[in-house]
Amino acid sequence: MIKVVFLGFGNVNSHLFNTLNKSTEVSILQVFNRNQIRFNSPFENIPFTDDILRIVDADVYIIGIPDDAISSFSESLAFQNKLVVHTSGGAAMNTLSSKNRRGIFYPLQTFSKQRKVDFKNIPICIEAENPDDLQTLRKLGKTISENVVEISSEKRAKLHLAAVFVNNFVNHLYEIGGEILNEEGLPFDLLKPLIAETASKIKTLTPEEAQTGPAKRNDKKTIEKHLHLLADSPYTKLYELFTEQLNQKYGKEL
Amino acid sequence: MIKVVFLGFGNVNSHLFNTLNKSTEVSILQVFNRNQIRFNSPFENIPFTDDILRIVDADVYIIGIPDDAISSFSESLAFQNKLVVHTSGGAAMNTLSSKNRRGIFYPLQTFSKQRKVDFKNIPICIEAENPDDLQTLRKLGKTISENVVEISSEKRAKLHLAAVFVNNFVNHLYEIGGEILNEEGLPFDLLKPLIAETASKIKTLTPEEAQTGPAKRNDKKTIEKHLHLLADSPYTKLYELFTEQLNQKYGKEL
Repeated sequence: MIKVVFLGFGNVNSHLFNTLNKSTEVSILQVFNRNQIRFNSPFENIPFTDDILRIVDADVYIIGIPDDAISSFSESLAFQNKLVVHTSGGAAMNTLSSKNRRGIFYPLQTFSKQRKVDFKNIPICIEAENPDDLQTLRKLGKTISENVVEISSEKRAKLHLAAVFVNNFVNHLYEIGGEILNEEGLPFDLLKPLIAETASKIKTLTPEEAQTGPAKRNDKKTIEKHLHLLADSPYTKLYELFTEQLNQKYGKEL
Repeated sequence: MIKVVFLGFGNVNSHLFNTLNKSTEVSILQVFNRNQIRFNSPFENIPFTDDILRIVDADVYIIGIPDDAISSFSESLAFQNKLVVHTSGGAAMNTLSSKNRRGIFYPLQTFSKQRKVDFKNIPICIEAENPDDLQTLRKLGKTISENVVEISSEKRAKLHLAAVFVNNFVNHLYEIGGEILNEEGLPFDLLKPLIAETASKIKTLTPEEAQTGPAKRNDKKTIEKHLHLLADSPYTKLYELFTEQLNQKYGKEL
Protein backbone atom coordinates (compact mmCIF):
# COMPACT_ATOMS: atom_id res chain seq x y z
CA MET A 1 0.00 0.00 0.00
CA ILE A 2 1.45 3.39 -1.04
CA LYS A 3 0.49 6.15 1.40
CA VAL A 4 -0.08 9.46 -0.36
CA VAL A 5 -0.67 13.03 0.83
CA PHE A 6 -1.81 15.73 -1.60
CA LEU A 7 -0.34 19.20 -1.15
CA GLY A 8 -2.56 21.63 -3.04
CA PHE A 9 -5.77 20.80 -4.80
CA GLY A 10 -5.89 22.46 -8.21
CA ASN A 11 -6.88 20.85 -11.50
CA VAL A 12 -4.10 18.26 -11.72
CA ASN A 13 -4.17 17.17 -8.09
CA SER A 14 -7.95 16.89 -7.90
CA HIS A 15 -7.95 14.66 -11.00
CA LEU A 16 -5.05 12.61 -9.58
CA PHE A 17 -6.90 12.38 -6.29
CA ASN A 18 -10.03 11.03 -7.97
CA THR A 19 -8.18 8.37 -9.89
CA LEU A 20 -5.64 7.31 -7.21
CA ASN A 21 -8.46 7.08 -4.69
CA LYS A 22 -9.96 4.25 -6.74
CA SER A 23 -6.80 2.14 -6.54
CA THR A 24 -6.69 -0.58 -3.91
CA GLU A 25 -2.90 -0.23 -3.77
CA VAL A 26 -3.02 3.43 -2.77
CA SER A 27 -4.15 5.00 0.46
CA ILE A 28 -4.78 8.74 0.42
CA LEU A 29 -4.05 9.81 3.98
CA GLN A 30 -4.71 13.52 3.73
CA VAL A 31 -5.24 16.54 1.54
CA PHE A 32 -3.54 19.80 2.46
CA ASN A 33 -4.73 23.03 0.87
CA ARG A 34 -4.42 26.68 1.91
CA ASN A 35 -8.16 27.10 1.47
CA GLN A 36 -10.88 24.80 2.74
CA ILE A 37 -12.15 22.22 0.19
CA ARG A 38 -15.60 20.76 0.27
CA PHE A 39 -15.31 17.11 -0.76
CA ASN A 40 -18.32 15.57 -2.38
CA SER A 41 -19.50 12.06 -1.68
CA PRO A 42 -17.85 9.52 -1.57
CA PHE A 43 -14.82 11.54 -0.42
CA GLU A 44 -16.25 13.20 2.74
CA ASN A 45 -14.04 11.10 4.96
CA ILE A 46 -10.66 12.09 3.49
CA PRO A 47 -8.83 14.01 6.23
CA PHE A 48 -8.21 17.62 5.27
CA THR A 49 -5.89 20.22 6.76
CA ASP A 50 -5.02 23.82 5.96
CA ASP A 51 -2.24 23.78 8.58
CA ILE A 52 1.18 23.04 7.09
CA LEU A 53 2.40 21.85 10.52
CA ARG A 54 -0.25 19.13 10.68
CA ILE A 55 0.70 17.29 7.51
CA VAL A 56 0.89 13.59 8.35
CA ASP A 57 3.55 10.99 7.61
CA ALA A 58 3.32 9.39 4.14
CA ASP A 59 5.33 7.59 1.43
CA VAL A 60 4.76 10.19 -1.28
CA TYR A 61 3.78 13.87 -1.06
CA ILE A 62 2.31 15.19 -4.30
CA ILE A 63 2.58 18.95 -4.78
CA GLY A 64 0.08 20.47 -7.21
CA ILE A 65 0.45 24.25 -7.07
CA PRO A 66 1.54 26.99 -9.53
CA ASP A 67 5.11 26.54 -10.81
CA ASP A 68 6.44 29.72 -9.26
CA ALA A 69 5.19 28.72 -5.80
CA ILE A 70 6.81 25.26 -5.77
CA SER A 71 10.21 26.39 -4.54
CA SER A 72 9.15 28.40 -1.49
CA PHE A 73 6.29 26.07 -0.59
CA SER A 74 8.50 22.97 -0.63
CA GLU A 75 11.06 24.85 1.49
CA SER A 76 8.36 25.68 4.03
CA LEU A 77 7.41 22.04 4.68
CA ALA A 78 8.14 21.08 8.30
CA PHE A 79 9.43 17.57 7.58
CA GLN A 80 12.65 16.31 5.98
CA ASN A 81 14.04 13.42 3.94
CA LYS A 82 10.63 12.31 2.63
CA LEU A 83 9.71 11.71 -1.03
CA VAL A 84 8.18 14.96 -2.30
CA VAL A 85 7.18 15.23 -5.95
CA HIS A 86 5.54 17.88 -8.08
CA THR A 87 3.19 17.40 -11.03
CA SER A 88 4.30 20.23 -13.30
CA GLY A 89 5.49 19.79 -16.88
CA GLY A 90 7.40 23.05 -16.88
CA ALA A 91 9.33 23.07 -13.61
CA ALA A 92 12.63 21.20 -13.15
CA MET A 93 13.01 18.68 -10.33
CA ASN A 94 15.52 20.90 -8.55
CA THR A 95 12.81 23.55 -8.19
CA LEU A 96 11.87 21.51 -5.14
CA SER A 97 13.66 22.13 -1.86
CA SER A 98 16.56 19.74 -1.28
CA LYS A 99 15.49 19.17 2.34
CA ASN A 100 13.36 16.29 1.05
CA ARG A 101 14.01 13.55 -1.52
CA ARG A 102 12.83 15.04 -4.78
CA GLY A 103 10.83 13.59 -7.62
CA ILE A 104 8.40 14.26 -10.49
CA PHE A 105 5.00 12.76 -11.18
CA TYR A 106 3.78 14.56 -14.29
CA PRO A 107 0.65 13.31 -16.05
CA LEU A 108 0.89 14.58 -19.65
CA GLN A 109 -2.70 15.64 -20.20
CA THR A 110 -4.99 18.69 -20.24
CA PHE A 111 -7.29 18.84 -17.24
CA SER A 112 -10.48 20.83 -16.84
CA LYS A 113 -12.66 20.76 -13.76
CA GLN A 114 -15.73 19.95 -15.84
CA ARG A 115 -14.31 16.84 -17.51
CA LYS A 116 -13.55 13.38 -16.27
CA VAL A 117 -10.35 11.89 -17.63
CA ASP A 118 -9.40 8.25 -18.06
CA PHE A 119 -5.79 7.91 -16.90
CA LYS A 120 -5.22 4.49 -18.46
CA ASN A 121 -3.40 5.80 -21.55
CA ILE A 122 -2.02 9.03 -20.13
CA PRO A 123 1.78 9.11 -20.04
CA ILE A 124 2.92 9.53 -16.44
CA CYS A 125 6.38 11.08 -16.63
CA ILE A 126 8.44 10.25 -13.57
CA GLU A 127 11.85 11.28 -12.30
CA ALA A 128 13.57 10.86 -8.92
CA GLU A 129 16.92 11.48 -7.28
CA ASN A 130 17.40 7.85 -6.27
CA PRO A 131 16.42 4.43 -7.66
CA ASP A 132 14.17 3.42 -4.74
CA ASP A 133 12.07 6.55 -5.08
CA LEU A 134 11.89 6.08 -8.84
CA GLN A 135 10.62 2.57 -8.18
CA THR A 136 7.95 3.89 -5.79
CA LEU A 137 6.81 6.45 -8.39
CA ARG A 138 6.73 3.80 -11.10
CA LYS A 139 4.59 1.60 -8.87
CA LEU A 140 2.30 4.52 -8.05
CA GLY A 141 2.00 5.45 -11.72
CA LYS A 142 1.19 1.90 -12.74
CA THR A 143 -1.82 1.83 -10.41
CA ILE A 144 -3.51 4.33 -12.76
CA SER A 145 -1.75 4.20 -16.14
CA GLU A 146 -0.27 1.67 -18.53
CA ASN A 147 2.15 4.30 -19.75
CA VAL A 148 4.69 5.24 -17.05
CA VAL A 149 7.93 6.68 -18.48
CA GLU A 150 11.11 7.95 -16.86
CA ILE A 151 11.99 11.34 -18.34
CA SER A 152 14.67 13.79 -17.21
CA SER A 153 13.84 17.40 -16.32
CA GLU A 154 15.58 18.59 -19.49
CA LYS A 155 13.55 16.34 -21.76
CA ARG A 156 10.36 17.04 -19.82
CA ALA A 157 10.82 20.77 -20.46
CA LYS A 158 10.81 20.06 -24.20
CA LEU A 159 7.87 17.71 -23.83
CA HIS A 160 5.95 20.47 -22.06
CA LEU A 161 6.85 22.90 -24.83
CA ALA A 162 5.56 20.43 -27.43
CA ALA A 163 2.40 19.99 -25.35
CA VAL A 164 1.75 23.75 -25.51
CA PHE A 165 1.85 23.56 -29.32
CA VAL A 166 -0.47 20.55 -29.67
CA ASN A 167 -2.85 21.54 -26.87
CA ASN A 168 -3.04 25.28 -26.04
CA PHE A 169 -2.23 26.52 -29.54
CA VAL A 170 -4.42 23.90 -31.23
CA ASN A 171 -7.26 24.90 -28.94
CA HIS A 172 -6.73 28.55 -29.92
CA LEU A 173 -7.11 27.53 -33.58
CA TYR A 174 -10.43 25.92 -32.61
CA GLU A 175 -11.42 29.27 -31.08
CA ILE A 176 -10.47 31.10 -34.28
CA GLY A 177 -12.44 28.62 -36.40
CA GLY A 178 -15.44 29.15 -34.14
CA GLU A 179 -15.14 32.94 -34.38
CA ILE A 180 -14.99 32.89 -38.18
CA LEU A 181 -18.15 30.78 -38.29
CA ASN A 182 -19.87 32.86 -35.65
CA GLU A 183 -19.44 36.00 -37.77
CA GLU A 184 -21.41 34.21 -40.50
CA GLY A 185 -24.08 32.96 -38.11
CA LEU A 186 -22.87 29.39 -38.64
CA PRO A 187 -22.69 26.98 -35.68
CA PHE A 188 -19.32 25.72 -34.36
CA ASP A 189 -20.82 22.23 -34.55
CA LEU A 190 -20.16 22.23 -38.31
CA LEU A 191 -16.42 21.98 -37.59
CA LYS A 192 -16.61 19.23 -34.99
CA PRO A 193 -16.43 16.20 -37.31
CA LEU A 194 -13.42 17.79 -39.05
CA ILE A 195 -11.71 18.52 -35.72
CA ALA A 196 -12.32 14.94 -34.56
CA GLU A 197 -10.99 13.43 -37.80
CA THR A 198 -7.93 15.71 -37.85
CA ALA A 199 -6.95 14.43 -34.39
CA SER A 200 -7.95 10.87 -35.21
CA LYS A 201 -5.89 10.72 -38.40
CA ILE A 202 -2.59 11.00 -36.57
CA LYS A 203 -3.30 7.85 -34.59
CA THR A 204 -2.37 5.93 -37.74
CA LEU A 205 -0.77 8.49 -40.09
CA THR A 206 2.17 10.79 -39.42
CA PRO A 207 1.21 14.49 -39.44
CA GLU A 208 3.14 14.75 -42.72
CA GLU A 209 1.05 11.99 -44.29
CA ALA A 210 -2.13 13.54 -42.91
CA GLN A 211 -1.43 17.07 -44.18
CA THR A 212 -3.61 18.47 -46.99
CA GLY A 213 -4.87 21.92 -47.93
CA PRO A 214 -4.08 25.02 -49.97
CA ALA A 215 -0.76 25.85 -48.25
CA LYS A 216 0.66 22.36 -48.80
CA ARG A 217 -0.32 22.25 -52.46
CA ASN A 218 0.67 25.90 -52.95
CA ASP A 219 -2.81 26.85 -54.17
CA LYS A 220 -2.08 30.57 -54.49
CA LYS A 221 -5.59 31.55 -55.56
CA THR A 222 -7.19 30.03 -52.46
CA ILE A 223 -4.52 31.52 -50.21
CA GLU A 224 -5.14 34.97 -51.70
CA LYS A 225 -8.88 34.51 -51.33
CA HIS A 226 -8.46 33.56 -47.67
CA LEU A 227 -6.22 36.54 -46.97
CA HIS A 228 -8.82 38.73 -48.64
CA LEU A 229 -11.57 37.20 -46.46
CA LEU A 230 -9.48 37.72 -43.32
CA ALA A 231 -8.88 41.36 -44.33
CA ASP A 232 -7.59 43.20 -41.24
CA SER A 233 -8.40 40.36 -38.86
CA PRO A 234 -5.87 39.71 -36.08
CA TYR A 235 -5.53 36.20 -37.51
CA THR A 236 -4.05 37.31 -40.85
CA LYS A 237 -0.49 37.15 -39.46
CA LEU A 238 -1.10 33.66 -38.13
CA TYR A 239 -2.50 32.56 -41.50
CA GLU A 240 0.53 33.98 -43.32
CA LEU A 241 3.02 32.42 -40.91
CA PHE A 242 1.44 28.95 -41.14
CA THR A 243 1.18 29.19 -44.92
CA GLU A 244 4.81 30.27 -45.23
CA GLN A 245 5.98 27.38 -43.02
CA LEU A 246 3.83 24.79 -44.79
CA ASN A 247 5.13 26.02 -48.14
CA GLN A 248 8.72 25.78 -46.95
CA LYS A 249 8.10 22.35 -45.47
CA TYR A 250 6.50 20.92 -48.60
CA GLY A 251 9.11 22.46 -50.87
CA LYS A 252 7.15 24.95 -52.93
CA GLU A 253 7.73 28.66 -53.13
CA LEU A 254 4.90 31.05 -52.38
CA MET B 1 -32.82 6.15 -57.76
CA ILE B 2 -30.40 9.05 -58.28
CA LYS B 3 -28.10 8.47 -61.24
CA VAL B 4 -24.61 9.84 -60.64
CA VAL B 5 -21.53 10.32 -62.82
CA PHE B 6 -18.17 11.22 -61.26
CA LEU B 7 -15.97 13.66 -63.17
CA GLY B 8 -12.46 13.34 -61.80
CA PHE B 9 -11.29 10.86 -59.21
CA GLY B 10 -9.09 12.57 -56.63
CA ASN B 11 -9.34 12.21 -52.86
CA VAL B 12 -12.80 13.67 -52.37
CA ASN B 13 -14.46 11.96 -55.32
CA SER B 14 -12.97 8.56 -54.59
CA HIS B 15 -14.24 8.75 -50.99
CA LEU B 16 -17.65 9.95 -52.20
CA PHE B 17 -17.67 7.15 -54.76
CA ASN B 18 -17.00 4.53 -52.09
CA THR B 19 -19.76 5.73 -49.83
CA LEU B 20 -22.41 6.59 -52.45
CA ASN B 21 -21.81 3.23 -54.08
CA LYS B 22 -23.11 1.54 -50.93
CA SER B 23 -26.44 3.38 -51.07
CA THR B 24 -29.38 1.51 -52.57
CA GLU B 25 -30.88 4.86 -53.62
CA VAL B 26 -27.90 5.83 -55.76
CA SER B 27 -26.71 4.36 -59.02
CA ILE B 28 -23.19 5.28 -60.12
CA LEU B 29 -23.36 5.11 -63.90
CA GLN B 30 -19.84 6.06 -64.80
CA VAL B 31 -16.52 7.52 -63.70
CA PHE B 32 -14.73 9.93 -66.01
CA ASN B 33 -11.06 10.70 -65.43
CA ARG B 34 -8.31 12.02 -67.67
CA ASN B 35 -6.09 9.12 -66.61
CA GLN B 36 -7.05 5.46 -66.41
CA ILE B 37 -8.13 4.25 -62.94
CA ARG B 38 -7.79 0.69 -61.78
CA PHE B 39 -10.83 -0.11 -59.67
CA ASN B 40 -10.40 -2.72 -57.01
CA SER B 41 -13.01 -5.35 -56.22
CA PRO B 42 -15.97 -4.94 -55.82
CA PHE B 43 -15.91 -1.95 -58.18
CA GLU B 44 -14.47 -3.59 -61.32
CA ASN B 45 -17.77 -3.28 -63.13
CA ILE B 46 -18.21 0.49 -62.82
CA PRO B 47 -17.99 1.87 -66.38
CA PHE B 48 -15.00 4.13 -66.86
CA THR B 49 -14.17 6.61 -69.59
CA ASP B 50 -11.33 9.03 -70.29
CA ASP B 51 -13.20 10.49 -73.26
CA ILE B 52 -15.12 13.64 -72.35
CA LEU B 53 -17.45 13.05 -75.36
CA ARG B 54 -18.57 9.67 -74.00
CA ILE B 55 -19.92 10.86 -70.67
CA VAL B 56 -23.36 9.30 -70.22
CA ASP B 57 -26.69 10.84 -69.22
CA ALA B 58 -27.22 11.21 -65.44
CA ASP B 59 -29.15 13.15 -62.78
CA VAL B 60 -26.07 14.59 -61.06
CA TYR B 61 -22.52 15.11 -62.30
CA ILE B 62 -20.01 15.46 -59.48
CA ILE B 63 -16.81 17.31 -60.38
CA GLY B 64 -13.82 16.60 -58.14
CA ILE B 65 -10.78 18.31 -59.64
CA PRO B 66 -8.43 21.15 -58.55
CA ASP B 67 -10.24 24.47 -57.98
CA ASP B 68 -8.45 26.30 -60.76
CA ALA B 69 -9.44 23.67 -63.33
CA ILE B 70 -13.18 23.70 -62.52
CA SER B 71 -14.09 26.63 -64.75
CA SER B 72 -12.49 25.46 -68.00
CA PHE B 73 -13.33 21.80 -67.43
CA SER B 74 -17.03 22.52 -66.79
CA GLU B 75 -17.07 24.71 -69.91
CA SER B 76 -15.60 21.84 -71.95
CA LEU B 77 -18.42 19.41 -71.13
CA ALA B 78 -20.34 18.43 -74.26
CA PHE B 79 -23.81 18.42 -72.67
CA GLN B 80 -26.05 21.24 -71.46
CA ASN B 81 -28.77 22.01 -68.91
CA LYS B 82 -27.86 19.11 -66.60
CA LEU B 83 -27.16 19.34 -62.86
CA VAL B 84 -23.38 19.72 -62.48
CA VAL B 85 -21.91 20.22 -59.01
CA HIS B 86 -18.43 20.55 -57.62
CA THR B 87 -17.12 19.36 -54.25
CA SER B 88 -14.73 22.18 -53.37
CA GLY B 89 -14.94 24.25 -50.20
CA GLY B 90 -13.04 27.14 -51.68
CA ALA B 91 -14.61 27.69 -55.13
CA ALA B 92 -17.85 29.64 -55.61
CA MET B 93 -20.79 28.04 -57.40
CA ASN B 94 -20.43 30.43 -60.31
CA THR B 95 -16.97 29.02 -60.98
CA LEU B 96 -18.93 26.37 -62.88
CA SER B 97 -19.92 27.03 -66.47
CA SER B 98 -23.47 28.39 -66.82
CA LYS B 99 -24.18 26.03 -69.71
CA ASN B 100 -25.38 23.51 -67.09
CA ARG B 101 -27.50 23.88 -63.94
CA ARG B 102 -24.98 24.58 -61.21
CA GLY B 103 -24.69 23.28 -57.69
CA ILE B 104 -22.38 22.43 -54.79
CA PHE B 105 -21.91 19.17 -52.92
CA TYR B 106 -19.14 19.88 -50.42
CA PRO B 107 -18.38 17.32 -47.72
CA LEU B 108 -16.65 19.24 -44.91
CA GLN B 109 -13.94 16.75 -44.00
CA THR B 110 -10.25 15.99 -44.52
CA PHE B 111 -9.66 13.05 -46.82
CA SER B 112 -6.55 10.95 -47.21
CA LYS B 113 -6.23 8.00 -49.54
CA GLN B 114 -5.04 5.75 -46.71
CA ARG B 115 -8.02 6.35 -44.43
CA LYS B 116 -11.62 5.22 -44.55
CA VAL B 117 -14.10 7.86 -43.49
CA ASP B 118 -17.58 7.41 -42.04
CA PHE B 119 -19.80 9.99 -43.74
CA LYS B 120 -22.68 9.71 -41.28
CA ASN B 121 -21.77 12.82 -39.27
CA ILE B 122 -19.93 14.76 -41.96
CA PRO B 123 -21.68 18.02 -42.88
CA ILE B 124 -22.61 17.93 -46.55
CA CYS B 125 -22.85 21.56 -47.65
CA ILE B 126 -25.18 21.96 -50.60
CA GLU B 127 -26.17 24.85 -52.84
CA ALA B 128 -28.05 25.02 -56.14
CA GLU B 129 -29.43 27.55 -58.57
CA ASN B 130 -32.98 26.22 -58.38
CA PRO B 131 -35.17 24.53 -55.73
CA ASP B 132 -35.59 21.22 -57.59
CA ASP B 133 -31.85 20.74 -57.88
CA LEU B 134 -31.37 21.69 -54.24
CA GLN B 135 -33.92 19.01 -53.39
CA THR B 136 -32.01 16.42 -55.45
CA LEU B 137 -28.76 17.32 -53.71
CA ARG B 138 -30.42 17.16 -50.30
CA LYS B 139 -31.77 13.72 -51.14
CA LEU B 140 -28.37 12.60 -52.41
CA GLY B 141 -26.66 13.97 -49.29
CA LYS B 142 -29.10 12.23 -46.98
CA THR B 143 -28.25 8.83 -48.46
CA ILE B 144 -24.82 9.16 -46.81
CA SER B 145 -25.04 11.78 -44.03
CA GLU B 146 -27.40 12.88 -41.29
CA ASN B 147 -26.04 16.38 -41.58
CA VAL B 148 -26.99 18.00 -44.92
CA VAL B 149 -26.98 21.81 -44.78
CA GLU B 150 -27.73 24.48 -47.36
CA ILE B 151 -24.93 27.05 -47.36
CA SER B 152 -24.32 29.92 -49.79
CA SER B 153 -21.02 30.27 -51.65
CA GLU B 154 -20.14 33.32 -49.52
CA LYS B 155 -20.64 31.48 -46.23
CA ARG B 156 -18.95 28.36 -47.59
CA ALA B 157 -15.83 30.41 -48.37
CA LYS B 158 -15.65 31.41 -44.69
CA LEU B 159 -16.36 27.84 -43.62
CA HIS B 160 -13.48 26.67 -45.78
CA LEU B 161 -11.22 29.33 -44.25
CA ALA B 162 -12.19 28.15 -40.75
CA ALA B 163 -11.53 24.56 -41.84
CA VAL B 164 -7.97 25.50 -42.83
CA PHE B 165 -7.37 26.81 -39.29
CA VAL B 166 -8.79 23.78 -37.46
CA ASN B 167 -7.43 21.17 -39.86
CA ASN B 168 -4.30 22.15 -41.85
CA PHE B 169 -2.87 24.53 -39.24
CA VAL B 170 -3.74 22.22 -36.34
CA ASN B 171 -2.03 19.39 -38.17
CA HIS B 172 1.05 21.58 -38.64
CA LEU B 173 1.13 22.10 -34.87
CA TYR B 174 1.11 18.31 -34.50
CA GLU B 175 4.12 18.23 -36.82
CA ILE B 176 5.92 20.84 -34.73
CA GLY B 177 5.18 18.92 -31.52
CA GLY B 178 6.55 15.78 -33.13
CA GLU B 179 9.70 17.58 -34.28
CA ILE B 180 10.40 18.98 -30.81
CA LEU B 181 10.10 15.49 -29.32
CA ASN B 182 12.13 13.93 -32.10
CA GLU B 183 15.06 16.23 -31.32
CA GLU B 184 15.03 14.78 -27.79
CA GLY B 185 14.71 11.20 -28.99
CA LEU B 186 11.20 11.04 -27.53
CA PRO B 187 8.41 9.25 -29.46
CA PHE B 188 5.48 11.20 -30.95
CA ASP B 189 3.22 8.64 -29.27
CA LEU B 190 3.72 10.47 -25.97
CA LEU B 191 1.59 13.34 -27.32
CA LYS B 192 -1.23 11.24 -28.74
CA PRO B 193 -3.42 11.02 -25.62
CA LEU B 194 -3.10 14.81 -25.20
CA ILE B 195 -3.99 15.42 -28.85
CA ALA B 196 -7.01 13.13 -28.56
CA GLU B 197 -8.24 14.78 -25.36
CA THR B 198 -7.71 18.31 -26.75
CA ALA B 199 -9.99 17.47 -29.68
CA SER B 200 -12.41 15.54 -27.50
CA LYS B 201 -12.83 18.33 -24.97
CA ILE B 202 -14.52 20.64 -27.43
CA LYS B 203 -17.31 18.15 -28.03
CA THR B 204 -18.72 19.28 -24.68
CA LEU B 205 -16.78 22.44 -23.73
CA THR B 206 -16.34 25.61 -25.76
CA PRO B 207 -12.71 26.23 -26.79
CA GLU B 208 -12.70 29.10 -24.27
CA GLU B 209 -13.77 26.77 -21.45
CA ALA B 210 -11.23 24.17 -22.58
CA GLN B 211 -8.26 26.56 -22.77
CA THR B 212 -5.45 26.20 -20.22
CA GLY B 213 -1.70 26.76 -20.26
CA PRO B 214 1.03 29.33 -19.63
CA ALA B 215 -0.18 31.90 -22.18
CA LYS B 216 -3.73 31.95 -20.79
CA ARG B 217 -2.58 32.32 -17.19
CA ASN B 218 0.18 34.74 -18.20
CA ASP B 219 2.88 32.55 -16.67
CA LYS B 220 5.80 34.70 -17.79
CA LYS B 221 8.52 32.43 -16.41
CA THR B 222 7.30 29.43 -18.38
CA ILE B 223 6.85 31.53 -21.53
CA GLU B 224 10.42 32.84 -21.22
CA LYS B 225 11.71 29.33 -20.60
CA HIS B 226 9.91 28.07 -23.71
CA LEU B 227 11.27 30.91 -25.85
CA HIS B 228 14.73 30.08 -24.53
CA LEU B 229 14.24 26.40 -25.42
CA LEU B 230 13.04 27.33 -28.91
CA ALA B 231 16.08 29.60 -29.36
CA ASP B 232 16.41 30.36 -33.08
CA SER B 233 13.85 27.75 -34.12
CA PRO B 234 11.52 28.72 -36.99
CA TYR B 235 8.65 28.15 -34.54
CA THR B 236 9.61 30.98 -32.17
CA LYS B 237 7.52 33.49 -34.15
CA LEU B 238 4.52 31.18 -34.04
CA TYR B 239 4.96 30.70 -30.28
CA GLU B 240 5.14 34.47 -29.75
CA LEU B 241 2.12 35.18 -31.93
CA PHE B 242 -0.06 32.57 -30.22
CA THR B 243 1.07 33.72 -26.78
CA GLU B 244 0.34 37.36 -27.64
CA GLN B 245 -3.15 36.49 -28.92
CA LEU B 246 -3.98 34.26 -25.96
CA ASN B 247 -2.84 36.99 -23.59
CA GLN B 248 -4.99 39.57 -25.35
CA LYS B 249 -7.93 37.20 -25.39
CA TYR B 250 -7.73 36.35 -21.71
CA GLY B 251 -7.15 39.93 -20.71
CA LYS B 252 -3.67 39.93 -19.26
CA GLU B 253 -0.72 41.95 -20.46
CA LEU B 254 2.52 40.24 -21.35
